[in-house]
Amino acid sequence: MTGRLIIPASLVLCSLLVFEVSRLETSAAPDIAAYVRANQHAIVSELTAFLSIPNVSSDLPNVQKNARHLRRLMERRGIQTQILEEGTAPLIYGELTAPGASQTLLFYCHYDGEPVEPAQWVGHEPFEPVLRDGPLSRGGAIIPFPNEETPYDDDWRIYARSASDDKAPIIALLAALDAMQESGISPDYHLKFLFEGEEEAGSPHLAEFLGKYRDLLGADLVIFADGPVYQTGDPTLYFGVRGIAKLEVTVYGPVRHLHSGHYGNWAPNPAMQLSQLLASMKDRDGRVLIEGFYEDVRPLTEEERKALEGAPAIEASLKQDLALGWTEGNNRGLPELLTLPSLNVHGMESAWVGDQSRTIVPAEATASIDLRLVPEIDPVRQQERVVAHIRRQGFHVVAEVPSLELRRRHEKVARVVRHYGYPALRTPMELPLARRLAGAVERAGSRVVKLPTMGGSVPLYVFNDQLGVPVIGLPTVNPDNNQHSPNENIRLGHFFRAIEIFAEVFRM
Amino acid sequence: MTGRLIIPASLVLCSLLVFEVSRLETSAAPDIAAYVRANQHAIVSELTAFLSIPNVSSDLPNVQKNARHLRRLMERRGIQTQILEEGTAPLIYGELTAPGASQTLLFYCHYDGEPVEPAQWVGHEPFEPVLRDGPLSRGGAIIPFPNEETPYDDDWRIYARSASDDKAPIIALLAALDAMQESGISPDYHLKFLFEGEEEAGSPHLAEFLGKYRDLLGADLVIFADGPVYQTGDPTLYFGVRGIAKLEVTVYGPVRHLHSGHYGNWAPNPAMQLSQLLASMKDRDGRVLIEGFYEDVRPLTEEERKALEGAPAIEASLKQDLALGWTEGNNRGLPELLTLPSLNVHGMESAWVGDQSRTIVPAEATASIDLRLVPEIDPVRQQERVVAHIRRQGFHVVAEVPSLELRRRHEKVARVVRHYGYPALRTPMELPLARRLAGAVERAGSRVVKLPTMGGSVPLYVFNDQLGVPVIGLPTVNPDNNQHSPNENIRLGHFFRAIEIFAEVFRM
Repeated sequence: MTGRLIIPASLVLCSLLVFEVSRLETSAAPDIAAYVRANQHAIVSELTAFLSIPNVSSDLPNVQKNARHLRRLMERRGIQTQILEEGTAPLIYGELTAPGASQTLLFYCHYDGEPVEPAQWVGHEPFEPVLRDGPLSRGGAIIPFPNEETPYDDDWRIYARSASDDKAPIIALLAALDAMQESGISPDYHLKFLFEGEEEAGSPHLAEFLGKYRDLLGADLVIFADGPVYQTGDPTLYFGVRGIAKLEVTVYGPVRHLHSGHYGNWAPNPAMQLSQLLASMKDRDGRVLIEGFYEDVRPLTEEERKALEGAPAIEASLKQDLALGWTEGNNRGLPELLTLPSLNVHGMESAWVGDQSRTIVPAEATASIDLRLVPEIDPVRQQERVVAHIRRQGFHVVAEVPSLELRRRHEKVARVVRHYGYPALRTPMELPLARRLAGAVERAGSRVVKLPTMGGSVPLYVFNDQLGVPVIGLPTVNPDNNQHSPNENIRLGHFFRAIEIFAEVFRM
Repeated sequence: MTGRLIIPASLVLCSLLVFEVSRLETSAAPDIAAYVRANQHAIVSELTAFLSIPNVSSDLPNVQKNARHLRRLMERRGIQTQILEEGTAPLIYGELTAPGASQTLLFYCHYDGEPVEPAQWVGHEPFEPVLRDGPLSRGGAIIPFPNEETPYDDDWRIYARSASDDKAPIIALLAALDAMQESGISPDYHLKFLFEGEEEAGSPHLAEFLGKYRDLLGADLVIFADGPVYQTGDPTLYFGVRGIAKLEVTVYGPVRHLHSGHYGNWAPNPAMQLSQLLASMKDRDGRVLIEGFYEDVRPLTEEERKALEGAPAIEASLKQDLALGWTEGNNRGLPELLTLPSLNVHGMESAWVGDQSRTIVPAEATASIDLRLVPEIDPVRQQERVVAHIRRQGFHVVAEVPSLELRRRHEKVARVVRHYGYPALRTPMELPLARRLAGAVERAGSRVVKLPTMGGSVPLYVFNDQLGVPVIGLPTVNPDNNQHSPNENIRLGHFFRAIEIFAEVFRM
């Protein structure tokens, strides 16, 4: 793996508050549910204690403090732990063998957090967890943590950095172990835990360390316990993620900004050339027109298609929330469209607009493009297709800043800077362990959303690549958790449900 | 006239140094040329003294000091002066009647200057004029002003703010009066002078004052003595300017930036929509595709066509200098293309590119567009044509920021903010006074460039509108004078030639 992993896409910009998060009805094994009910206060205390330790990725001393704390929590459950790497943010490994088990589940979480902007946190510091009687966005007020006699309400929320991303799932995993022990139930799998401390810094060493500890980390399934559940708030499984590759395209006009009156319809305008180039890439329904763009797409399996059909429709609510009068793809559903590769212009710039604008022919124009990938599409090959398309539009394509001599020699010149990214991953829903996992989550939830792929990109492929193990995403936190933003929170109903889900998974 | 005039376009971004400015051979009347040669030192001293008074538009006390100084220079020549307006930067009027003359020429110049950035001036302060033995850009060094025995070289230059824009033409006009008086020649016209002190501030009151002093300012021809000569350095006349109107178009995606993975080929992308919209406006040769865009263009007269054919070809040198491998308009010449209306995207923005870029579906995208106008095209009507085109592309067009409700109701929404601008002006070359003016400039120059129109926009129409007088532009300063930039300069050959040109014009 070259370069850093990017920040998992599932964790960015997901703070949609579209749906009334459904009040989950407990349907898991009564023993676990009863344990959670009876031990709410201790479990929440364990979470808030963990949230009180600042964990911004770049703050190594505190990240190490988190690691020491977490390691103690793990060992208290009889998990055998090792710090695999200490020079960087500690990579914590834990193992709990199950007598008689033949298969192994590896759970991945991260205990570091995004940077904080304390001024934007309402009513408290990011590392001073508070309880609110509802979401801040709907006027939820800070209330005292209740005494042992008062039960927690599912709609109450803990506000603190990393409440959802990703400390709550860690505490839920540990609480699930307690619940099983208390209920006298043994896991049916050997359990392994890998807790990373630099995920929000882009997981710069994860691929390397996975390769290095390949033998130690051997498992039958990696469960990626990070990210929010589906927009409806229902328990969710995603069997894949889209890959990503990026391109930045700069096209050139005159060597310096020119007066648009004096040179206005003579000097080529790079903003117009870029517009014409980008417009040639997609039709007005959003279908990509680049040759071969959809060529390698692996057809959906019957099970994937059924899962898509089963996903609750969210488009109407999303359109309302996002103020959209139209969507790409001829009214096809969002989950289905996410099984296709995409081309997205995520930034565009040429000279100035608004108050800063000047009546010039700009010297250059740039667009940043991301390509989302689905299985069988090679990131480099997909980039090549875009570059070939740019060439077919009459551009001489270069990788470096073109010399003036080169610009004089060619009618149109485009500089394309490629950012590699990484491929998609999709684990077949037909895998026996995948089916069992779905069954376990279903037992813990009234309705489970199974997505063949998440739209965003997370480098899950490294687990597959380095360990040769299939990966499935099991998010548990509420979708409106403000992750990566001020006022991050976890809805307690989702937190408690996560414990029940994990307990089901341990014995699935 | 509503709103402020914009900064005359002729004066912005013209600092091309493409051509070896031609060394002008003196061919004017020997008496004037001899006077200039004999009085070089006094004339240059008068210019440098004027340049030593700071004249940044916004610095009213110093602008007033310039006005007092200039008024004294005018009165020394027997010009009857008045300060027409004093509350603002003084508007100076001067009048010199010619016995037996029946027609009147009104000369317009401005004595204020652009702001300065002293740190970027090489070797001296902007208001401490220095002499260089060549252009700074080619290593010209500061040399002492010579004593009376040493003549000035035509290629030497004075460096100071306003050296070219627009103090040298003012001093040249006054020196031309001296030269005629010394040679015993009388002007054949009543001469009027209007010297503005807030041109670089956008001439906020000019239209109003022209209307107010309409009777006083009555003339047969306005000579606009500002701006640089043609890129070849040859004496130049422009009989018109393009008008201008601007539009800013914003198109909308989701109400907030969305994760491009999770919503990537479902949420409409405004950068792509804007690209498609802009691309629909021009073909790949640069011809505007908007209905009616060229409809009102007044055909060129025979004389205008001949003038275009006579303009020296500069395209090859410009392409070399500007690093262009191609130009719009199917290889038609620059001066010819400037007789057509244009549509130019002068700025474009959506989210971020480069290091700042994030993989999002942007919430909106904006393009700033300028329309250059030629005679008979109404600015508002041309804007309307663009708006109608945007509607035909499927956009619901609004003037204000659209409400979320409105965005939900329409598939595509564009906000179009219109900036009015002003119409073009073109004075017929066939006018007797126009012909005489061309003859006069020709007598003073070995080669004269006559342009039916300048490409840029200057609100010359206000003279025509308010005074009912035709206007012709008579620039005299070198094209590489760095006007509006640090290290502004005047080439002395052009300065001395300006005196001869004006003397010819006074008796044309």
